[in-house]
Amino acid sequence: MSEGERLTELAKRRGFYFPAAEAYGGAAGFWTYGPQGAALKDNVEEAWRDRFVVREGHQEISAPDVMPEPVFEASGHLDTFDDMIIECGECGATHRADHVVEDNTDVEEAESLPNEEVMEIIAEHDVGCPSCGASLAGEPVDNFNLMFETNIGPGTSSPGYLRPETAQGIFVEFPQLSEYARNQLPFGVAQIGKAYRNEISPRKSLVRVREFTQAELEHFVDPEDDEPPLAEVADVTLPLYSGEAQQADGEGVRHLTVREAVDEGVVASDWVAYYLGVAKGWYERIGVDMDRFRFRQHLPGELSHYASDCWDAESEVDGDWIEVTGFAYRGSYDLDKHAAHSGEDYTVFKQYDEPVTVERPTVDPDMSYLGPEFGGAAGDVADALEALAEREPGAFDANEVTVEVDGEPYTVPVEQTNFAVEEVTESGEHVRPHVVEPSFGVGRLVYTVLAHAYTVDEVDGEERTYLDLPPEQAPTTVGVFPLMDKDGLDDYAREIAEALRTAGHAVTYDDSGAIGRRYRRQDEIGTPYCVTVDYESLEEDTVTLRERDSTDQRRVSIDGLAETIEGLTEGDTTFDDL
Amino acid sequence: MSEGERLTELAKRRGFYFPAAEAYGGAAGFWTYGPQGAALKDNVEEAWRDRFVVREGHQEISAPDVMPEPVFEASGHLDTFDDMIIECGECGATHRADHVVEDNTDVEEAESLPNEEVMEIIAEHDVGCPSCGASLAGEPVDNFNLMFETNIGPGTSSPGYLRPETAQGIFVEFPQLSEYARNQLPFGVAQIGKAYRNEISPRKSLVRVREFTQAELEHFVDPEDDEPPLAEVADVTLPLYSGEAQQADGEGVRHLTVREAVDEGVVASDWVAYYLGVAKGWYERIGVDMDRFRFRQHLPGELSHYASDCWDAESEVDGDWIEVTGFAYRGSYDLDKHAAHSGEDYTVFKQYDEPVTVERPTVDPDMSYLGPEFGGAAGDVADALEALAEREPGAFDANEVTVEVDGEPYTVPVEQTNFAVEEVTESGEHVRPHVVEPSFGVGRLVYTVLAHAYTVDEVDGEERTYLDLPPEQAPTTVGVFPLMDKDGLDDYAREIAEALRTAGHAVTYDDSGAIGRRYRRQDEIGTPYCVTVDYESLEEDTVTLRERDSTDQRRVSIDGLAETIEGLTEGDTTFDDL
Repeated sequence: MSEGERLTELAKRRGFYFPAAEAYGGAAGFWTYGPQGAALKDNVEEAWRDRFVVREGHQEISAPDVMPEPVFEASGHLDTFDDMIIECGECGATHRADHVVEDNTDVEEAESLPNEEVMEIIAEHDVGCPSCGASLAGEPVDNFNLMFETNIGPGTSSPGYLRPETAQGIFVEFPQLSEYARNQLPFGVAQIGKAYRNEISPRKSLVRVREFTQAELEHFVDPEDDEPPLAEVADVTLPLYSGEAQQADGEGVRHLTVREAVDEGVVASDWVAYYLGVAKGWYERIGVDMDRFRFRQHLPGELSHYASDCWDAESEVDGDWIEVTGFAYRGSYDLDKHAAHSGEDYTVFKQYDEPVTVERPTVDPDMSYLGPEFGGAAGDVADALEALAEREPGAFDANEVTVEVDGEPYTVPVEQTNFAVEEVTESGEHVRPHVVEPSFGVGRLVYTVLAHAYTVDEVDGEERTYLDLPPEQAPTTVGVFPLMDKDGLDDYAREIAEALRTAGHAVTYDDSGAIGRRYRRQDEIGTPYCVTVDYESLEEDTVTLRERDSTDQRRVSIDGLAETIEGLTEGDTTFDDL
Repeated sequence: MSEGERLTELAKRRGFYFPAAEAYGGAAGFWTYGPQGAALKDNVEEAWRDRFVVREGHQEISAPDVMPEPVFEASGHLDTFDDMIIECGECGATHRADHVVEDNTDVEEAESLPNEEVMEIIAEHDVGCPSCGASLAGEPVDNFNLMFETNIGPGTSSPGYLRPETAQGIFVEFPQLSEYARNQLPFGVAQIGKAYRNEISPRKSLVRVREFTQAELEHFVDPEDDEPPLAEVADVTLPLYSGEAQQADGEGVRHLTVREAVDEGVVASDWVAYYLGVAKGWYERIGVDMDRFRFRQHLPGELSHYASDCWDAESEVDGDWIEVTGFAYRGSYDLDKHAAHSGEDYTVFKQYDEPVTVERPTVDPDMSYLGPEFGGAAGDVADALEALAEREPGAFDANEVTVEVDGEPYTVPVEQTNFAVEEVTESGEHVRPHVVEPSFGVGRLVYTVLAHAYTVDEVDGEERTYLDLPPEQAPTTVGVFPLMDKDGLDDYAREIAEALRTAGHAVTYDDSGAIGRRYRRQDEIGTPYCVTVDYESLEEDTVTLRERDSTDQRRVSIDGLAETIEGLTEGDTTFDDL
């Protein structure tokens, strides 16, 4: 079995995740997180919130999943959020045309080619349909928009879309969110929530799915004045796979500290570098294996048109590198778009330390001249003169100025414009913030953490499988077992389980099968500690506490058991201290 | 301002919630939770998880929001999840026909009337369009399905729907979930997630929306053997508004203990009574005012066809009673439906204490007789004989039996059927579990908690508004202020804020405006404690700790501040103890 297959088998058998609605044949790309998976996912989200929201002093919001069309007209998703699709004329199956080409020819990154060229390549190589084998030559390659569409309210007059990223729910509300931040940059707004992409060919388990969870942070900064607190992560070492290294033969990942990466210019944006540093520590905390991890820079051709520098965090699973986070410096692209489309104010007013006196050209056209002269166009001519004065005050040095309205030239004597240059005292200016965005795929992180935690060793001559999850991330913190399901052991064990639950631990009670089997079950879901209640417990108020990784056991007092386990999970004490 | 208007104003100004995408005119029924609201909502969910999942020993899953059509064919939502819609012939606006009738006539519960009758009432009263006033008489009243529809994958061959309740994501996966529970009843599966209903006329802020969050628990029980642990909540007093009381004049809410409610038969199901008791304590914990709260029994006409007893928890806001939770005994309705539609096994195998010997009638028809006799129908005749033997073994007491296949009778001599009665030892039986469902609307609870927390008092001769939220639920636990933004007070205050954050507190740092104004800002979002760093702090390492409700202040040591606040929020110490 490959690593991926082994993982899928364990995930289903032990309740991490499985294909949704299989009773009805399912729907590709939709997964249900079972009890263990939902808990693990929740723990990953909680750790993210702790690090990227609470610790950073940012704010978190929760916007709807369904958003009206104008939002995505502005964001560009309606026009350009496409994949290339080809339909088999024989069996009717649809495929991603670029994937079909990449899988059957030497062509790489077919996604960046025009549709016609992809069609030609398919014809040239007589590529067959992956489903039925019939030739795809001659079939058209079209654009397929990846947003799920629906209708808001009765009828079809108000289309809505399932958001393809949580980010737009933040960008569109910037004017309101900025008020909550009392219009002071920098400030960060985060969101953890569902996003949806109607993938043509979902694949690889949790990696390419149609519904997933994102944890995104949009950090709004003043591009001129704000600097990240780089010193806090300056010494963190980053495994960097730069664009240059990717294009050069034989060069691989370089390990540089955040400080070195910035000084050498490997990472262009200080803000991006800061978040790479913060994230690195966080990945380790949730259990990503740093030997199977890298930060990869986007190649120039891969870079979104709005991003000036972009790095992906990638984890290795089953021989593939999977993007688990994107770090992008998005400039003011998103706020520009929403400002232009909505006509609302997407800026922050930045107060100067001292008021500044500036010269401002103004006009106050004599409408009693413009009116008779230009008739219905007079108002537009006046507006055009005002715009001209602001743009190009030198034009008013002549005797006449000419402006264009609806393609027609209108010439006005300068004296009729009442052109003047006023001295104006300004207390500040409107700034369009730039955005730094770390965007995490929660499902892919869950997948990575599971894959990297999967361990096989030998215990008492038998092979054992366990997940060496960090205690903080494990779905269950402690398994509680009565040695026998009788003689009061069961009641006592239930009492202990209840007390541990009340103390906030995630507890599983298990009374079925031999103790060894129960240990194995907990090992497979990564439970760091197990408690066994036996006959000695009844007399001496002690239990056997067993550690997952070492399988070592200690006799500990029931009094204070919750605190003992808390100390262990938080790393304040070690098992050897007991 | 009404209570509702006051709440909406505060919610927007202080960042609890506001209409989504207003920059583009918005879309009715979609709300964005701002920083305070998202935190409050998250705290409500966390408290729910703690009480209904962890403490009860249940399991939580997370299923997709988009589900394929067969799921809702089985659940009945595709056919019957409708509201009555009427479209104005003049302005084209659509309305809920039953609401239009209720708002303009004396008719109550118009929803339960047939469409034709609603049309007649509208014509009779010449009811006008709520939007433009034109007469709606003669306009057809149609059924409008409330599910948001979309397409999964390219084309329209695979319709999908946004789930109208989280419950189906649990029911459909019962076979898998039952395995995780090792096929032992009772077990409970919970889910917190989005649900979507394409309301014709969303209204009343967070109360009737198109996208909302549910917290649902499906407790699968053996109807014969399982009993709830009623003793645990026997003494909890429930404010019960029974169906009988609703129908009788002048009778109101009765306060009965859970035990009394069960003994008197006011609550028919012990399981429902158990969860009413558990929930009552939980509502108090999250800050629902018990003087504005009741459990209301569904009237016979209101009861879903599948539910044998159903109670709603209702809170009073702005003079209206709002359903915040439904408690239903759903029987085996949902599992029956999915079993019938999917053909999968939706049962649990229940082992008998002792194997049981039963008589089982069997047939083994002689095909060398049936074949020549009945030709192509022989196989079906054999199947029909088998079914008959199981259903009505007495039929084989005669010399001949007659079965029907495709409407044709086939008569077979009994001796050719090889009818026999075998003694079979059975070790158990397949049981279709019953379901007890407490289903919570998280947004409505947030709305309730805010409304009930809203308090106005007088401080130093000035009116003050504050939210008396329980500390555990408050979006921010502690506000940290430097008295002045200079002289190192700011640095010290930031250090303290950072330390409190690291200790897990939700902290807001605020250095703008007079201290009094900063207190008021925190009061309005319900922050239970504020810390002010002043010049004395620099010398004596103490700060002023201020309590929200009393506005009392104490001088406390910075050393141990995080623990002091933790003790206060968890109720281990009181402010007077300091």
